[in-house]
Amino acid sequence: MPGGTDMTLRPFLWRAERLYPDTEIVSRTAEGITRYTYREYGDRVRQLANALDDLGIEAGDRVATFCWNHHRHFEAYFATPSIGAQLHTINPLLPAEHIRYIVGNAEDRVLFVDPSLIEALEPAVQSPEFDAVERYVVMGEEPPETSLDPVVSYEEFIGDRPTEYDWPDVGEDQPAGMCYTSGTTGNPKGVEYTQKMLWAHTMATITPQGLGIASDDVVMPVVPMFHVNAWGMPFTTTAGGAKHVYPGPSPTPEDLAGLIEEEAVTITAGVPTVWLGLMDYCEEHDVDLSSLEHVIVGGSAAPKSMIRWFDDRGVEVLHAWGMTEMSPIGSISHLKADLESADYETQVDKRAKQGLMVPGLEFRVVDDDGEEVPWNGEDFGELWVRGPWVTTEYFKRPDANEEDFEDGWLKTGDVVTVDEDGYIKIVDRAKDVIKSGGEWISSVELENSVMAHDGVAEATVIGVPHEKWQERPIAFIVAAEGADEATVESEVMDMLAAEYPKWWLPDDVVFIDDVPKTATGKFSKKDLRDRYSDASMFEGQAPEEAAPDDD
Amino acid sequence: MPGGTDMTLRPFLWRAERLYPDTEIVSRTAEGITRYTYREYGDRVRQLANALDDLGIEAGDRVATFCWNHHRHFEAYFATPSIGAQLHTINPLLPAEHIRYIVGNAEDRVLFVDPSLIEALEPAVQSPEFDAVERYVVMGEEPPETSLDPVVSYEEFIGDRPTEYDWPDVGEDQPAGMCYTSGTTGNPKGVEYTQKMLWAHTMATITPQGLGIASDDVVMPVVPMFHVNAWGMPFTTTAGGAKHVYPGPSPTPEDLAGLIEEEAVTITAGVPTVWLGLMDYCEEHDVDLSSLEHVIVGGSAAPKSMIRWFDDRGVEVLHAWGMTEMSPIGSISHLKADLESADYETQVDKRAKQGLMVPGLEFRVVDDDGEEVPWNGEDFGELWVRGPWVTTEYFKRPDANEEDFEDGWLKTGDVVTVDEDGYIKIVDRAKDVIKSGGEWISSVELENSVMAHDGVAEATVIGVPHEKWQERPIAFIVAAEGADEATVESEVMDMLAAEYPKWWLPDDVVFIDDVPKTATGKFSKKDLRDRYSDASMFEGQAPEEAAPDDD
Repeated sequence: MPGGTDMTLRPFLWRAERLYPDTEIVSRTAEGITRYTYREYGDRVRQLANALDDLGIEAGDRVATFCWNHHRHFEAYFATPSIGAQLHTINPLLPAEHIRYIVGNAEDRVLFVDPSLIEALEPAVQSPEFDAVERYVVMGEEPPETSLDPVVSYEEFIGDRPTEYDWPDVGEDQPAGMCYTSGTTGNPKGVEYTQKMLWAHTMATITPQGLGIASDDVVMPVVPMFHVNAWGMPFTTTAGGAKHVYPGPSPTPEDLAGLIEEEAVTITAGVPTVWLGLMDYCEEHDVDLSSLEHVIVGGSAAPKSMIRWFDDRGVEVLHAWGMTEMSPIGSISHLKADLESADYETQVDKRAKQGLMVPGLEFRVVDDDGEEVPWNGEDFGELWVRGPWVTTEYFKRPDANEEDFEDGWLKTGDVVTVDEDGYIKIVDRAKDVIKSGGEWISSVELENSVMAHDGVAEATVIGVPHEKWQERPIAFIVAAEGADEATVESEVMDMLAAEYPKWWLPDDVVFIDDVPKTATGKFSKKDLRDRYSDASMFEGQAPEEAAPDDD
Repeated sequence: MPGGTDMTLRPFLWRAERLYPDTEIVSRTAEGITRYTYREYGDRVRQLANALDDLGIEAGDRVATFCWNHHRHFEAYFATPSIGAQLHTINPLLPAEHIRYIVGNAEDRVLFVDPSLIEALEPAVQSPEFDAVERYVVMGEEPPETSLDPVVSYEEFIGDRPTEYDWPDVGEDQPAGMCYTSGTTGNPKGVEYTQKMLWAHTMATITPQGLGIASDDVVMPVVPMFHVNAWGMPFTTTAGGAKHVYPGPSPTPEDLAGLIEEEAVTITAGVPTVWLGLMDYCEEHDVDLSSLEHVIVGGSAAPKSMIRWFDDRGVEVLHAWGMTEMSPIGSISHLKADLESADYETQVDKRAKQGLMVPGLEFRVVDDDGEEVPWNGEDFGELWVRGPWVTTEYFKRPDANEEDFEDGWLKTGDVVTVDEDGYIKIVDRAKDVIKSGGEWISSVELENSVMAHDGVAEATVIGVPHEKWQERPIAFIVAAEGADEATVESEVMDMLAAEYPKWWLPDDVVFIDDVPKTATGKFSKKDLRDRYSDASMFEGQAPEEAAPDDD
């Protein structure tokens, strides 16, 4: 059969080391700033490979990390998959029971942990799920004091190993990475990344339609390396031959500003709260952002004010969307050429959406009947995606597979609109969208509107069962201190009536003391839905004319 | 097994059509300029798919084209592979016996031919190799007058077909394309491109490290679409959502200048002679090249004067190297960030080399013993490459496979140096390099030097067998009109002695009336070697001190 060689990560490392031997990897840790070149990086990667070999780690074994963004973590990114093993990055912010489940489910054989995260790990370790873990490697110079056992420091672990390693021929279908989704309900679901998936994701996101990483870029992923490989940036940056900057454990806005200035960062990436912190810091300090060209914003929606703030400073915000199941990047809000002549607010509206799907992926947006909805920026449905870096199954979870995959498509659980230009905009999660009279109502849009009222401290909108309309929206409001609930209710309802069709209006407003939250601080709509599942509570309140058919 | 969906071309077409429906495809044919959008393109691709279906073309069948660069040829680029068939692009400039061999070897079932190329095809057709061809489709509106039979015009062929087509799920290992190498000796060798190889090549060459094609680019491939898919540009341009410009049959420099001006071309690509023609035309006419950003030069070496000429006009020449076996792109001479502060001549020296290997490939440069040569810009050896878009075998040619492939590596047959920065420079072909006393001498460098002498009209240097040194160089010179051979010989030898080590100097200079040429006009060293294979002719002339060991 004709065909090329397998798609693996190894050639990316080879290319960076041979073509860009003097390009730097800069890393902030508790020990200070570490700075070395791809040449030294390659040597250390091979030392780590030898150390893993000596520990008996073999192709197919899983190697876990419990670490922030730094050079040692990055060394594990290439050493582990290149010996045929699988890098399993664990989110250290998860509750202990999730960590236990994840480590047990993955059967990790070795676990790399940051000194600052030992405390977070120790409580989880005393359980049978950790039985498979044979060695803890603490990311630092010194042998640490810890109850983890057996333990070794990273520098001891790799210290005297040879800098040569004869890489095996790893097949492209070999699992190379792994990350668990932190679902709000049920056990986390493991997503495996094969060599080929990571190759495809790297190539697709290095393009101008993706992140556009050139060899003269300086790339600082603030998004954690435990979160879907820091959106793949350690791989894309290497493939592109660019300079890496890793901001280390818990970087403050001051740390980030300092690294941008000193290392002349051109591309950085993270969630909106990181940038809000940096923006505040810049307002109060004299920070030179002139090297910065792109800020990739993902994880949750980029506020328009953020896009404008960076624009004012000559920095382009690129809004990105993806999922753990997608390695993770799906879409990026590049401005299309024919929108370059549009007025600025139109451009910001487009750029604040989740953007255009990158080359190599396909998507569809479907309603309850599986029919595709029109691309008009108004109709919405669930987003389904497929492509070479979109997984087609979860690790050991046939139950979830049945729910989330269909004919090779990943059902993302995101409810979106697509406009005439092909820009995707997330309007809700599929489990939160309110299905009323055969049409869908966005709970997110309603609650954003409600929260805009001065008398509202917090609010959420959920669908409750309804005999005739299937579901109807109910608004739950925590009144601001001193606000009069009756006044708030009537003003909010008037506001909503002016903005939305009648059938979108909540059937009731319920005042509560606080909105229940999940472990990670998100509103727990599930909790509210359980509490208010008795449809009869609100029965009869839906006006006949509120049906979508009448609108 | 975890993993994404198959890598196929279909999502590139889907993306262009859905995200960039109004972006144009512009095509120059004998009928004038045709201009339509991706939306119409998609409809016509599906009409063609239906027409191929109705003809009984099935997955695995080969569909041949004998065409220049235009929109109809481009329609075949996506329709054929997307129904699972294989697009076989034939070079119409080949001699009739090669065309017969190729069509017979590939067993093409249908053949698309340009009106202007019917005359070139007809003489080849009356032979048993064409037995499998069931239909000739002439690229135009009108039913043509021709002896080809059965024949139909393209517009009739697709005319009344539906614009809907339910694409099958084509596997990534399905052969999608095919091109024969036009070797100077022996039968042409067929190279098959699977869906996955074309996917990988498209992704790797759309990157900033490749061609860097963004959605606001306007791309005009002048390199023929029968020559390794016009270096893949119809696919990269589509994946990038950019505008296509196809210059049609035999474009003159005036045609190219006109298209660049009128369509605001930003990227164009072709062999050096094309650009020499354009440069001459621009010197004599007022041509606006201001839209142009990059000229990709490949096929043979880009002269430095060409790089400088375009630099003076704000256009960056990107020198590229590749092979039919590599889909075809391997390296591109982007200037590295740390060379941006170098002086201009140093930069031109680097950019005139064949460049830096793109991400995803690996290469090695090996001497006769299979040992890698150092990267010092001086030592040379044969270039071996491997990667996901580098073929690992020829079509039905086990003999050639044994010769050209080893352990997954393609032995390119190019002899190169690699400098400290990783830039590759081709110094010879492996079959022409002169192997003397265990070291290699570049025949190309010697003959370039010889040809620089005013008294030399043409010259070539070959290695002839030598008892002690294995081979020794002999220079063959056609003296310029009126030049004195004895004077030329002594001056040339003095010149070479000043430039090269002693052991590089030709053992003899032979004056001949003309250098034998191949069918395509290249110097036929093979012919000369056959003529002068009797080593004894030159025996004893190699001075002892000319051995490399003594240098």
